[in-house]
Amino acid sequence: MHQFTDPEKHFLDCDGAYLRLATLHANGAPHLTVMWFRREADRILMITPLDSQKVRNLRHDTRFSALIEDPETPQRYLELRGTAEIIDDDQRAREELFRIARRYIGDDRAQAYVQGLSPAPRVILALDTETIFNRNALEDA
Amino acid sequence: MHQFTDPEKHFLDCDGAYLRLATLHANGAPHLTVMWFRREADRILMITPLDSQKVRNLRHDTRFSALIEDPETPQRYLELRGTAEIIDDDQRAREELFRIARRYIGDDRAQAYVQGLSPAPRVILALDTETIFNRNALEDA
Repeated sequence: MHQFTDPEKHFLDCDGAYLRLATLHANGAPHLTVMWFRREADRILMITPLDSQKVRNLRHDTRFSALIEDPETPQRYLELRGTAEIIDDDQRAREELFRIARRYIGDDRAQAYVQGLSPAPRVILALDTETIFNRNALEDA
Repeated sequence: MHQFTDPEKHFLDCDGAYLRLATLHANGAPHLTVMWFRREADRILMITPLDSQKVRNLRHDTRFSALIEDPETPQRYLELRGTAEIIDDDQRAREELFRIARRYIGDDRAQAYVQGLSPAPRVILALDTETIFNRNALEDA
């Protein structure tokens, strides 16, 4: 498993950066969503409903690709590739969602956001990175 | 093929919006890149080197997924799914790149950018959308 370097950690810990997650439908076609996330050591954590397309996809094929862009310079980005673990624990997921949400909207709004969630069970998606690419979109045209 | 509605066209024509393109490696794993693009009628056009991973991927499997976000409200986004055509014509690709680049950096810089490109052949990627999803990341946590 890839261990993030200090510059990668700095990039991944930027406030406000979204993650774009690619997973695979059962027929092999790619599926994309935009996610909040948080880095914890060498894993990337996200929350999603248990009953969501990306969870169905990852149960079928654990491979993912994820993009994280520099919020101020979106042509600079990291692509992470690896496999995702689904942690099926609604209570842990809600606790983790608060830690993720506060990165984006601050403590007060994060608390209100988590309290306002529907009761549908949530899971944690934990991404383990095998390879990482540091790219610049303008050098790729 | 999907025909874009007026609100979708408005969204797709926002200045400064990047496109995140998911394609499939030969082993079926997803691959992601960040791209400049332009809508022309019901197709999305992008430029990339002929010798690039995404071209190899699309020759093997034409299926794509693409994300386009509202630059001012990145949690609002469109996901487009369909198939991509590779238009292998370097001269057309360079002409098209100018039309794409001016959306992002204006006429003068776009001209300089296209003139400064390496001689490596470029292709046009033309995305034909089959299905489109209008999502909000904050409703998916």
